Amino acid sequence: VDARIDRLQRITAASPGVVVLAGGLPSDDLFPRKALARAFLSVLDEPQCAALQYGWPEGDRELRSWIAARLRARGAEVAADDVIVTSGAQQAVAIAVERLALRGTVAGVDRETYPAALDLLRSRGVTPDAGSEGVDWFYVMPGIANPRGDGLTPGRRAALLASGRPIIADEAYAELRFDGEVPRPLFADARDRTWHVGTFSKTLCPGLRVGWLVPPPAERAAALAAKRARDLQAGTLAQSIVRAFLRDDDFDARLDRARAFYEARAGRLACALRRCLPSWRFRDAEGGFSLFVETDLDGDDARLLACAARPGVAFDPGSLFHAQPEPGPITLRVCFSTVAPDALDEAAVRLERTARAFRRGGARRVA
Amino acid sequence: VDARIDRLQRITAASPGVVVLAGGLPSDDLFPRKALARAFLSVLDEPQCAALQYGWPEGDRELRSWIAARLRARGAEVAADDVIVTSGAQQAVAIAVERLALRGTVAGVDRETYPAALDLLRSRGVTPDAGSEGVDWFYVMPGIANPRGDGLTPGRRAALLASGRPIIADEAYAELRFDGEVPRPLFADARDRTWHVGTFSKTLCPGLRVGWLVPPPAERAAALAAKRARDLQAGTLAQSIVRAFLRDDDFDARLDRARAFYEARAGRLACALRRCLPSWRFRDAEGGFSLFVETDLDGDDARLLACAARPGVAFDPGSLFHAQPEPGPITLRVCFSTVAPDALDEAAVRLERTARAFRRGGARRVA
Repeated sequence: VDARIDRLQRITAASPGVVVLAGGLPSDDLFPRKALARAFLSVLDEPQCAALQYGWPEGDRELRSWIAARLRARGAEVAADDVIVTSGAQQAVAIAVERLALRGTVAGVDRETYPAALDLLRSRGVTPDAGSEGVDWFYVMPGIANPRGDGLTPGRRAALLASGRPIIADEAYAELRFDGEVPRPLFADARDRTWHVGTFSKTLCPGLRVGWLVPPPAERAAALAAKRARDLQAGTLAQSIVRAFLRDDDFDARLDRARAFYEARAGRLACALRRCLPSWRFRDAEGGFSLFVETDLDGDDARLLACAARPGVAFDPGSLFHAQPEPGPITLRVCFSTVAPDALDEAAVRLERTARAFRRGGARRVA
Repeated sequence: VDARIDRLQRITAASPGVVVLAGGLPSDDLFPRKALARAFLSVLDEPQCAALQYGWPEGDRELRSWIAARLRARGAEVAADDVIVTSGAQQAVAIAVERLALRGTVAGVDRETYPAALDLLRSRGVTPDAGSEGVDWFYVMPGIANPRGDGLTPGRRAALLASGRPIIADEAYAELRFDGEVPRPLFADARDRTWHVGTFSKTLCPGLRVGWLVPPPAERAAALAAKRARDLQAGTLAQSIVRAFLRDDDFDARLDRARAFYEARAGRLACALRRCLPSWRFRDAEGGFSLFVETDLDGDDARLLACAARPGVAFDPGSLFHAQPEPGPITLRVCFSTVAPDALDEAAVRLERTARAFRRGGARRVA
């Protein structure tokens, strides 16, 4: 993370009145707190209070069965024992990167992608490369990619499968496609070289830190050893809560509600941006939490963020998402997920003020 | 982990009637489930349901303040911002090992030590070395070491400090010294090169996965970046529960009760072993959950564990804890922490039967 941007984001997060289009968080309007509380109280009554004790590194058996069953319903051949529960999707990606870094140090990625994955690659000496030639393996977000909010094209999917290279398929947002057409998992068509990653962070809530990894079968033992070495196991309590919660929940109905909720906000922000900033360009989101916008401004995106403080709006500077430094206009990610519809309108107004301040040369010095 | 031993341990754990002296778990008799339930329900009522949302990578501010205050009371100069909340002590050790592996690949350790730390070292290409010459840095468990249940001698402590080398000080058990004389933290005397590690797993419960790391000040930014890359943050819900729980809890009184509880079990197991197996040798525990026993048997400790299945007892084979393969008699770790007093007496009787079966050549083939 760029230290200047991190500092600005922390200041923003602590400032009341700022409309925060940053962070990529799910809306707490959708957190099922009552049902989670019931699940919590029920697991505390289980024998030996197992929810508070250590568990096995691969995770809760019933939870892994649920995950495997959902993946089977989408066309994959996968059993509970193929699934490793992880401390969020991030840890699943980290384990996959740890193993794949042994196979090659150039990873194919989208031109813009998830910043924490870029950090992970770089920390392991792997170069993220947005080209498609000469890469050793791929990190992709099928279904819905962060930050663009679009899916893999059929051509890109076919090329990935034809490449014969290992793939990390990070499905963090895949179930939040607004059309509900969650694609067949990539590992269903390339089981021996695909590292499938999923999470409850976007669909249920992130504070539990429950994700999962389905490694290629030949890598399962090594991946499990890596999981154990990293933190022994994902939180037993969090896994138990999710497992008990899922027994009583209609998860597909939950996803339908979430899709409608986020789609409405995506449309509202898109309209507001087109009204206030007609020269900024972006594609409508097919799902997820954000739009990725190309502005008509040139220069330092951290300065643009600093200029946003007075109008009272915040966003994620686009440079965080770039595999390589990009020439051309400033880009930014704007998240609609946690912002109420009226505030999305106001955010666009404030972004327009921000752009004016930027053009006037505001916030020349950014610490 | 040795695959044979892992398999035997899983079979044992699933067998009712086996007295399990393995695992190093805290007793669920001491889990404060009602108070944790109150804490959980209270944090769900906080604004924006922050306990279920993403948090900052360094962790909950109030929790870090609590941790820092307790360390200051033991003589260390440390502020909340020096503390990084981790997904258990294991992750804290993993981050420290990741950084220190860049400084040298020979780590000084006790002759027997925590198996998951040994796995971590080896997975990073670091050789654990029980000698004191020629090591690049140290991994130690001050206060109470696993598996021996003893503390650093004053001479060893002085030698560590005089070495000038980096130290990982894993205090997982330090507050569970039966005499309550928790030593001054090592990092109070070597702040610039000590990685201090602590956890709530032994004193409160492990299922929350809340530990902490205090890195040397010059390493704080790198350690925080490593934490973020690994899993973004420790579980927000778990941290929130602990933070809310601690507001109302008398933690020192809790520790006093835990020490008395475990000390009684340690004494009971020691008596039973001396009665049933007078030729086995061990030192009484000064704290923690286990004794480390030298038997009068020679050979394969996995076979000894296989022999224990019929009498119905389980333990941790000593080879798991050795930095280097050791000649000499079979050793084993026996944990008293989760076993009721009567069952500890019975465990010793069964261990004596196990030894007889082993001498007769039982379980010659261990898968």
